[in-house]
Amino acid sequence: MTLSINTTRLQQDIETLSAIGRREDHGLYRMAFTEGDMEGRAWFKQQLEEAGLEVYEDGAANIHGRLNWDDETPAVVTGSHLDTVPAAGHLDGALGVLVGLECLRCIKEQNLPLRHPLEVISFTDEEGRFGGMAGSQAIAGQLTPESIHQAVDLDGVTLSEAMQQNGYDAMHALHARYRPEAIHAFVELHIEQGPILDQMGLSVGVVDAIAGLFKWEVSLIGTANHAGTTPMHMRNDAFQGLAEFSSEIQRILEENGSARSVATIGRVDIKPGAPNVVPGRVEFSLEARDTDAHTLEDLQHAFRKALSAIARRRNLMFEFKILSEIDPVKCDLGLVNDLEEVAKQLKHEPLIMASGAAHDTQMMARIARAAMVFVPSKGGRSHSSAEWTELVDIERGANVMLNALYKIAGEQQV
Amino acid sequence: MTLSINTTRLQQDIETLSAIGRREDHGLYRMAFTEGDMEGRAWFKQQLEEAGLEVYEDGAANIHGRLNWDDETPAVVTGSHLDTVPAAGHLDGALGVLVGLECLRCIKEQNLPLRHPLEVISFTDEEGRFGGMAGSQAIAGQLTPESIHQAVDLDGVTLSEAMQQNGYDAMHALHARYRPEAIHAFVELHIEQGPILDQMGLSVGVVDAIAGLFKWEVSLIGTANHAGTTPMHMRNDAFQGLAEFSSEIQRILEENGSARSVATIGRVDIKPGAPNVVPGRVEFSLEARDTDAHTLEDLQHAFRKALSAIARRRNLMFEFKILSEIDPVKCDLGLVNDLEEVAKQLKHEPLIMASGAAHDTQMMARIARAAMVFVPSKGGRSHSSAEWTELVDIERGANVMLNALYKIAGEQQV
Repeated sequence: MTLSINTTRLQQDIETLSAIGRREDHGLYRMAFTEGDMEGRAWFKQQLEEAGLEVYEDGAANIHGRLNWDDETPAVVTGSHLDTVPAAGHLDGALGVLVGLECLRCIKEQNLPLRHPLEVISFTDEEGRFGGMAGSQAIAGQLTPESIHQAVDLDGVTLSEAMQQNGYDAMHALHARYRPEAIHAFVELHIEQGPILDQMGLSVGVVDAIAGLFKWEVSLIGTANHAGTTPMHMRNDAFQGLAEFSSEIQRILEENGSARSVATIGRVDIKPGAPNVVPGRVEFSLEARDTDAHTLEDLQHAFRKALSAIARRRNLMFEFKILSEIDPVKCDLGLVNDLEEVAKQLKHEPLIMASGAAHDTQMMARIARAAMVFVPSKGGRSHSSAEWTELVDIERGANVMLNALYKIAGEQQV
Repeated sequence: MTLSINTTRLQQDIETLSAIGRREDHGLYRMAFTEGDMEGRAWFKQQLEEAGLEVYEDGAANIHGRLNWDDETPAVVTGSHLDTVPAAGHLDGALGVLVGLECLRCIKEQNLPLRHPLEVISFTDEEGRFGGMAGSQAIAGQLTPESIHQAVDLDGVTLSEAMQQNGYDAMHALHARYRPEAIHAFVELHIEQGPILDQMGLSVGVVDAIAGLFKWEVSLIGTANHAGTTPMHMRNDAFQGLAEFSSEIQRILEENGSARSVATIGRVDIKPGAPNVVPGRVEFSLEARDTDAHTLEDLQHAFRKALSAIARRRNLMFEFKILSEIDPVKCDLGLVNDLEEVAKQLKHEPLIMASGAAHDTQMMARIARAAMVFVPSKGGRSHSSAEWTELVDIERGANVMLNALYKIAGEQQV
């Protein structure tokens, strides 16, 4: 048996939601607990009710839509987030929530027999007005009274204030925690936010790992000198040190990384930064990602060696600070297999791939078997109004989700 | 016969002048026509008078101190500038003016017979509050009513306003022009502002050319992408293009330049400039200098080829704008030989070298035979309070100037 979502209805939902929170000056704007986000939440709760699902809002303001819930049987859970970055695209997060809604709606409409309750969650503040993944962190038990107290947005508004203004008590987020036994499996659908599926012409990716990363702030310190009067061989040009290091990144990845490794110098600050002065100092960000913790360690080691050698050879000082380190997350192999099988049954050759971006699944994987389904992002664009996925790909991804959720939660699995 | 300056008197002048225009917040500050500059001018005129030299201020507010002037005989002219950059060192410009004063003072005191009148000039606004070298441009006939009218400082104050506030009419600068026949030779002493003499342990440099330069603003345009989700081989990383180009600069100089060629990337602006975004665009300055015009042309050609090739290979767009081009200036070979000989007579092995920085001599060379004498800059430091030259080197440089000026202007030359 093959189940199919109602594509017209899903498309309708996507369009309706994409108009909520749209501002003349900021494009689509549903940052957590802003007017647009609150409007989106209200609309989503109404959709859950109209679909006849049980609506539950937990202490972290995560919105749950439940089918066959009994507080005992481990649930099969899906979901993503409705909040957005400023000037956002209309699919990042939203698509996973709406597909979850559509799947539960279909299963309920057809009265399909379930062994496990089904749940769709809209997680609070994934995008990080207050740090990111607040809702999934709450469910995974990662919040503390202190972390809640300290969460603050760029304008100095605290999470507590923002929640209070909307009738929530932020400290209740501590009660949103799920016991691991409460979840049988967690699967999130999301747009890829990268170019791989689009470039390969595939409709469906199954995520077997979410990349971890390290982010450094590196300084190379030489001597600022007059660019006209200082011969080349008497310079300690900090930028030339960076240029050499930058040119070695590909080699370092090839020697020490995996096919999934990426490394990026995205921010560079040259001092003093005048055309006629040899750069005396350069500060830059180095960020690398991989899905394997040992590989990340090897890369850290290799980058440190390369920077040290360049600094020594060029008579530069070299300093670095670790700004963040996030461990990679492995998805559940059984779930990955289930998703792959379902995709193949539906004749959509899936790509087993990594997620380079962070997702709520990262948190949910701490307490549950978890995996993800990706649909293509046109040109890899995301966090921008250029974000786009063809309806046919959305439909295929949603049908993989529907059939997989039913395969995992339904009676026929017994 | 060997002449010697009065080192104690010169040292005294250097110390007195270095206190004029000193500000608590800005260090030494004698930008043209500011309070400090006006005070420095008044003090200098007084020194000229006390030395019994004829004082003349031309329409460009250049201050002339003259010995044996007769408006007919071509003069042997020396000089530099008293104005400074903000937070300046105490020798840049000032030393050349004070050494000129000291030389004329010595020759007058000893009643040495002269074939040519002698003149020391303090040039107006060499450092460029209003663009740079206004005074020597005026004497070399490089100003126009339009260029005077358009000269403006960073705060929007025009040259005309600044001069009027101090009792000058800027348009009179047009009358400061010297006929080429009026000058027999021009020699400027200046600190090197580079590390060469200091590192070689030499006291005196004789400048045979002033480097020309070209300055470009280059853009490489790729695609900004998510640093986590975009595989290395699907990136158009604009900064990686710059890093590769930067690493080729040394090769390009070796293949196409001279031993005097330098090239510098001093300013870099990466967009969007976030650690987690692959740089979509990079804008940077490229400045190259050499003393030969053909070499500069060859370098322009080679840089353009390298940038084009990198852009093509990396699928980047490449744009560049020429911000400025300044022709190199050859010094007068006869004068260079005179200075070299004098230095050798005084047992100071001179280095024949290029000036990488711009000087008033550049303008004077348009209407006169010209050359320069350099004394070492400790560590190559300049345009900073760290600027320093040992007194013994100042003394040696000044004595080269004294003996050379007398050799060129004095009776024994006949």
